[in-house]
Amino acid sequence: MKEIVENVRKKGVRIHNITNYVTVNDCANITLACGAFPIMADDPSEVEEIVSVCDGLNLNLGTPNDRKIEAMILAGKKANELGIPVVFDPVGVGVSSYRVQACSRLLAQVHVSLIRGNISEIKALAGMDSDAHGLEAGVLDKVNEANLDFVIAFAKAFAKKMGAVLVLSGQIDIVCDSNQAYVIRNGHSYMSKVSGTGCMLSSLCAAYIASDPFDVLSAGAAAVCAMGLAGELAYSRMSHLDGNVSYRNYLIDAINTMKPEQLEKGAKYEVR
Amino acid sequence: MKEIVENVRKKGVRIHNITNYVTVNDCANITLACGAFPIMADDPSEVEEIVSVCDGLNLNLGTPNDRKIEAMILAGKKANELGIPVVFDPVGVGVSSYRVQACSRLLAQVHVSLIRGNISEIKALAGMDSDAHGLEAGVLDKVNEANLDFVIAFAKAFAKKMGAVLVLSGQIDIVCDSNQAYVIRNGHSYMSKVSGTGCMLSSLCAAYIASDPFDVLSAGAAAVCAMGLAGELAYSRMSHLDGNVSYRNYLIDAINTMKPEQLEKGAKYEVR
Amino acid sequence: MKEIVENVRKKGVRIHNITNYVTVNDCANITLACGAFPIMADDPSEVEEIVSVCDGLNLNLGTPNDRKIEAMILAGKKANELGIPVVFDPVGVGVSSYRVQACSRLLAQVHVSLIRGNISEIKALAGMDSDAHGLEAGVLDKVNEANLDFVIAFAKAFAKKMGAVLVLSGQIDIVCDSNQAYVIRNGHSYMSKVSGTGCMLSSLCAAYIASDPFDVLSAGAAAVCAMGLAGELAYSRMSHLDGNVSYRNYLIDAINTMKPEQLEKGAKYEVR
Repeated sequence: MKEIVENVRKKGVRIHNITNYVTVNDCANITLACGAFPIMADDPSEVEEIVSVCDGLNLNLGTPNDRKIEAMILAGKKANELGIPVVFDPVGVGVSSYRVQACSRLLAQVHVSLIRGNISEIKALAGMDSDAHGLEAGVLDKVNEANLDFVIAFAKAFAKKMGAVLVLSGQIDIVCDSNQAYVIRNGHSYMSKVSGTGCMLSSLCAAYIASDPFDVLSAGAAAVCAMGLAGELAYSRMSHLDGNVSYRNYLIDAINTMKPEQLEKGAKYEVR
Repeated sequence: MKEIVENVRKKGVRIHNITNYVTVNDCANITLACGAFPIMADDPSEVEEIVSVCDGLNLNLGTPNDRKIEAMILAGKKANELGIPVVFDPVGVGVSSYRVQACSRLLAQVHVSLIRGNISEIKALAGMDSDAHGLEAGVLDKVNEANLDFVIAFAKAFAKKMGAVLVLSGQIDIVCDSNQAYVIRNGHSYMSKVSGTGCMLSSLCAAYIASDPFDVLSAGAAAVCAMGLAGELAYSRMSHLDGNVSYRNYLIDAINTMKPEQLEKGAKYEVR
Repeated sequence: MKEIVENVRKKGVRIHNITNYVTVNDCANITLACGAFPIMADDPSEVEEIVSVCDGLNLNLGTPNDRKIEAMILAGKKANELGIPVVFDPVGVGVSSYRVQACSRLLAQVHVSLIRGNISEIKALAGMDSDAHGLEAGVLDKVNEANLDFVIAFAKAFAKKMGAVLVLSGQIDIVCDSNQAYVIRNGHSYMSKVSGTGCMLSSLCAAYIASDPFDVLSAGAAAVCAMGLAGELAYSRMSHLDGNVSYRNYLIDAINTMKPEQLEKGAKYEVR
C-alpha cells in the first residue's frame, strides 16, 4: 500500500468533482490533503471541457437536481471516451425515486470504474429490497462477522454486474471486483458522527485510482485503509472537550500527515 | 431540560434540511452533534418523498432561488399533511423584497411549528418597520433589559398570529408561544463572529422539536439554552491564538459533548 | 498598513458575495474575522436590491452557471451605478471556454475595482497563452525573482488596460495599478494545501477596499500582506499532527486575532 500512497503524492493528479454542496469543502480539502488537486464544476456548459484536462472524475449524488445530473452524464461520457477513471457515490439513493432514476440514467450511459456506498445505498442500486430510509445503513443492513460471507458474495456479484470495483462502507469495509475482495477492519465508529465521511472517502478513492488507473482494486483498497486509519489516528488525538467537528478536522489532517510506512503498518485487511 | 437532551440522543430523529449553501455543512454537523441525523435535499422533484421518511423539516431562507422556494413549499405542505414539525428561519428577510415575497408565499401555504430569527428578521416578517439592512439585528433593534417587556409582548402577539413558537435571537433570547415566554440569558457575544450561528440554532431547534413534537415550546427553549451554553463553553476553551473559526469548531464540539446534567445546571432562563 | 486594518474593524462594512459553493463558508468567516459583515445572495431576482445596501461587492467565478453569471452582471452594474467597489476573482478562467466567455461578458458590462487571480488566471484573462489547465498557476507560469521585472511590467500594463488594481497571487505577490506595484513577500507555501486561500484573499480584499474605497491600491496591498502574514502565523502554530484543515482554521483565526501593529511590523513589501 506504501507505493500507492507515494504515487498519489508524486503524481499530483487533478480530480474533477461534481458533488453536493453539503460536504464539498471537506472533499476539496481531503483531495489536497492526499496530494491531488480538486476542480469543482457542475454546469453542463463546461464539464466536458474540464474533465478533459483532469485525471479522474468523482460523481456524487448528494443534493441532486436536473442540471447537475445532466452535467454528470456529460462529464462521465467524456471521461469514458478519454479513458479517465470515474468514481460514483450514489448518496442516499434509497431515499427518493428521483435519485433511483438518476442512477439508472447515469449508469446506463456512463461506465464507472468504482462505486462507493453503504450497504443500503448499494442494495438500493442493486434493486434489492432495503430498509434504508436515509443516508445511513439501515439496522438490518449492517455488515458484521456473522453475515460477512453472504455480503462478500453479494458484493462480488454486484461488482461483476457493474463491471466496476465496489467499495462497500460499513463497520467492516469491503472493496472488491468480481473475483477478489479486500475485507478491511480499519476505521472508528466516531466517523459516523461527521457529515460527509462517505463523500470524503469517495473523493479519496478518486484521487487514488486516478494515480493508479491500472489497478483500481488495489488503489481503492488503499484509499479505504487510509481513510480508516485516519479515523483511528484522529480519534487517538481527541481531548475530552473535542467533539465531531474537531474530529473531522483531525481526520483530514491525518490524511495529510500520513506517512506511507504508517499506512503499510496500520492497514488491517485480508483478501478473500 | 435534561430529559429533552436525552430524548434527542435516544430517538435519533431524521431532519430534512432545505437550506443555504453557506452554512450547510455546519448545520449538518451540529445536527449530528446533538444526536439527530441530517438529510439535505432541495429539488422539487424529490423533497416530498424525502420529508415523508423524516421526523422534522428545517426550512432556511438563505441564498434563495425559485427552485428552492418551490421545494420548501412542497416539502412544507407534505410535512403538514403528515404532522411532521417544521422550523422556519427567515434569513435576511429584511434584505430584499424577493425574500419578503418568498416568506409570504411560504407562510400562506405552510404551517410552521417554530420560527427562529433575530429581531430585525422577525420584525420584517411581522410587516413592521425595521432598520435592518442586513443579516444582523439593526442597532435600534437590540433586545435589552430596558425594552424586554415590550419585546416579549410583541413576540407573544406574533407567536399567536403565526400559531407557532417564536425564537427571537439576540443578546437576550426569547422563546415563546402566545402565552408563555422563556427569557434566556445564555450565550456569548463572540457567537456573532461566526457565520451561521443562527442557522445552526435553527437546525438544533428542528432536531429538538422533532424529538419532542408535543412540547415545541420547551423543546425550543432547551435548544436555545443548549446553543447558548455551548457558546459559553466554547469561549472558555479558547487560547489567545484562537479566532472565530476555532470558536465555531468548539461550539459544535460543545453541543456534541454536552452532558444532559450540564445543560440542566448551565441553562439560565426564567419564564414570564 | 496599521490604519487600514483599524479602519476595517471600525467601519464594519457589509460585503455582498456572489461566490462558489466550495469555499463560501470560509469566505464568510474570513470576512467576519477581519471585522466586516458578509451577505451571500446569488439570484438575479434580489442581487440589485442587496448590493444597494452593501459597501462592497465580491464576484467569484468558481462553480459558475448562467443564473449566477447573470446575477453577477446585474449586481456589478448596480454597484457601478452606486459607486460601490467591486472585486472580481476569475477562478479557473483558463479551465473552460465557458468561463472565458463569462469573464468577457462580465468585464464588458461591469467596471471592477480590483481583480485577483494567480498568474495563469490573469494571463488567461489577458488573452495571452497560458499553460494553465487548472486552478493552480502552471509550472511555467511561476513568478520568481528571475522573471519579476517582466511580470511587474505585464501586471502594470494589464492593470492599466482594465482600469483596476491587480492582485497577482503567487510565491511573490504583486499588487499594482498602472503606475505602482507592491511586491509582497509574505505568505507560506503551505497555503496552497488549503482549498480556497485565493477565494478567501479576494473576500479579504473586498472588505479592505470597501473600508478604504479612495485608496484601493494601498487597501489591496494591506489585505495581501495580512493574508500572507496570517499564513506565516498559522504555520508557526502547527503541531506535527496538524494538517491542511487545522492550518485553514489557524489561518482564519490569525486574521481574526491579528493586531494592527502586528501587520505593520510583519508586512514584507517594497514598492516599485
